[in-house]
Amino acid sequence: MIASMESRVWQPVATADWQDDACVLLDQRVLPGVERYLRLETPEAVADAIREMVVRGAPAIGITAAYGAVLAYRQAEQADQAEPDQAVLERGFSVLAAARPTAANLQWALNRVRKAAGPPALGAWKRALDAAREIHREDIEMNHAMGRLGEALIEGCAPVVTHCNAGALATGGFGTALGVIREAWAAGKVERVYAGETRPWLQGSRLTAWELARDGVPVTVLTDSAMAQMFRRQRPGWLIVGADRVAANGDVANKIGTYSLALTARHHGAQVMVVAPSSTVDLDTGSGDQILIEQRAGAEIWTAVGEAPPPEGICFENPAFDITPAGLVDALVTEKGVVKNPDRESLAAVMAGP
Amino acid sequence: MIASMESRVWQPVATADWQDDACVLLDQRVLPGVERYLRLETPEAVADAIREMVVRGAPAIGITAAYGAVLAYRQAEQADQAEPDQAVLERGFSVLAAARPTAANLQWALNRVRKAAGPPALGAWKRALDAAREIHREDIEMNHAMGRLGEALIEGCAPVVTHCNAGALATGGFGTALGVIREAWAAGKVERVYAGETRPWLQGSRLTAWELARDGVPVTVLTDSAMAQMFRRQRPGWLIVGADRVAANGDVANKIGTYSLALTARHHGAQVMVVAPSSTVDLDTGSGDQILIEQRAGAEIWTAVGEAPPPEGICFENPAFDITPAGLVDALVTEKGVVKNPDRESLAAVMAGP
Repeated sequence: MIASMESRVWQPVATADWQDDACVLLDQRVLPGVERYLRLETPEAVADAIREMVVRGAPAIGITAAYGAVLAYRQAEQADQAEPDQAVLERGFSVLAAARPTAANLQWALNRVRKAAGPPALGAWKRALDAAREIHREDIEMNHAMGRLGEALIEGCAPVVTHCNAGALATGGFGTALGVIREAWAAGKVERVYAGETRPWLQGSRLTAWELARDGVPVTVLTDSAMAQMFRRQRPGWLIVGADRVAANGDVANKIGTYSLALTARHHGAQVMVVAPSSTVDLDTGSGDQILIEQRAGAEIWTAVGEAPPPEGICFENPAFDITPAGLVDALVTEKGVVKNPDRESLAAVMAGP
Repeated sequence: MIASMESRVWQPVATADWQDDACVLLDQRVLPGVERYLRLETPEAVADAIREMVVRGAPAIGITAAYGAVLAYRQAEQADQAEPDQAVLERGFSVLAAARPTAANLQWALNRVRKAAGPPALGAWKRALDAAREIHREDIEMNHAMGRLGEALIEGCAPVVTHCNAGALATGGFGTALGVIREAWAAGKVERVYAGETRPWLQGSRLTAWELARDGVPVTVLTDSAMAQMFRRQRPGWLIVGADRVAANGDVANKIGTYSLALTARHHGAQVMVVAPSSTVDLDTGSGDQILIEQRAGAEIWTAVGEAPPPEGICFENPAFDITPAGLVDALVTEKGVVKNPDRESLAAVMAGP
């Protein structure tokens, strides 16, 4: 079977890229029906696109923000003399930083571009672009490294479970959780992937199922609430997910629903693998309780019911992320290495590595 | 506060009724935007309506099937001589029995109407109608009885959680799980109701939230996958749900997602209450493993993504129900009494009661 040969060449989707002096994003909101690319020429437009979920997934947000930072440098150089370049740059950076509060990679990418490009000056934007491209290229390399590390943890052949989309679409290409799943499938260790639809944005049914089906990996979509019964009947070996932020004690902020799946996995004897580049690990945040959870509009939930507004008196809670306590994580896979049963000490040790 | 006075008069919604020689159903598929009633004059039309989820909820399905059985008797009496009345009656009954496989009340209601009306004969349909109306009236009375029994189990005042819709819309009126919640709210024991939206049909956001908001009970809607984090932060005291079938050992078949919530409740120290009339208890089914779980079309999940068909290669699993093992149920409330930590013996004892 070709799909399970080691020599398989994967063709990742380019979800964010730099082309002709602009940031180009694949509009994930209209996938899989439509493959549309948006060309963004200002940091404000990039911030809007991040906030409105044209692009999502912590690593892809980081890469997109890095290209947004390049635009902020260009804007600063092109500003007229009414405003100092520095103020233009700061405004661009702050609008980008505020776009999504939970993803650690966003601030990390902005800091790295600024450090490489220095103060606004003629040609600084080119140093910024070099840094952004480096972030992008490194992300793909890290995906492959994590894919191999994660694959090595899996024994035998069983179904695996994933949530949301931590795939090529969520990264520079290839994917974190889906990178591991791609490698494990190629190694003959994956019977089938069960993907929760991931309400309210349906990243599972819209994006993950599309990515996997495109690669010929067998994938079954279920509602998020059907997962527990599936665990009981199909006995998957691993829940494999990405992360938006990992606290110093190993608590994991990831797409809403991850905590529920991690509890379910533990109850049914499946293991939990979190796959995320080290830029997702935020040693300045002590624990999950200190992670700001983005609350989104109730309309994102209600819109499934219909176009009429909800009857008066109904409240909504729509957190974009939840916290999975470190105690439920069996393995955290970063490009720097694998941390089994992560805690403050083991996580710090791996992060201090090369 | 008026809403918390014991003397409160609740005004239940009539979801199924008999009017002018026909079964009249509130079309729950278009709620809460539209309040539309369908008039059904044949058992086939009633079976279609049950299958297509014009009406849902085990007790409401039972009542609707009983009115459908009345139509089968009328059809048998009105049949021309080309076919014996008995054959017409049997066809009507079998099409009704096949409409939804999981709800125990459906077969129970058909049996009861047949027993009361006897073989097809002139005027038998009127005995059938009396029996159907009695089933309907008793269901409302049982709802109130269960409401009081369930309310008495709740101590203090805390948030409660429910799933799907086990309310007036799912019963003859008032509700099973929502009957308990209504009584508990009136007794000042409910801070707020958290209702999962209940994918894929959204009975939580469409029906439960509407019913509760209409009665002034504070209700918050979340996606099903956001429940676990809510449990961790809001510390609800009880998960209160209905049931579609209860096996002899106390295993509970209920709307998909119930098992996941029961696991979550147990993990967070909340108790699980299942509220269902004794007609839901099926002593002929030994355990949950023997309950046939209705599998519905994947299109019910995919339709949230868009109108285009899913990309090739994506599979779906869409079970309508799941099984919550008896070990996760802290209290089963029937009109015959409360069974704490139900098992084969305790359940049989309560079922043998008056």
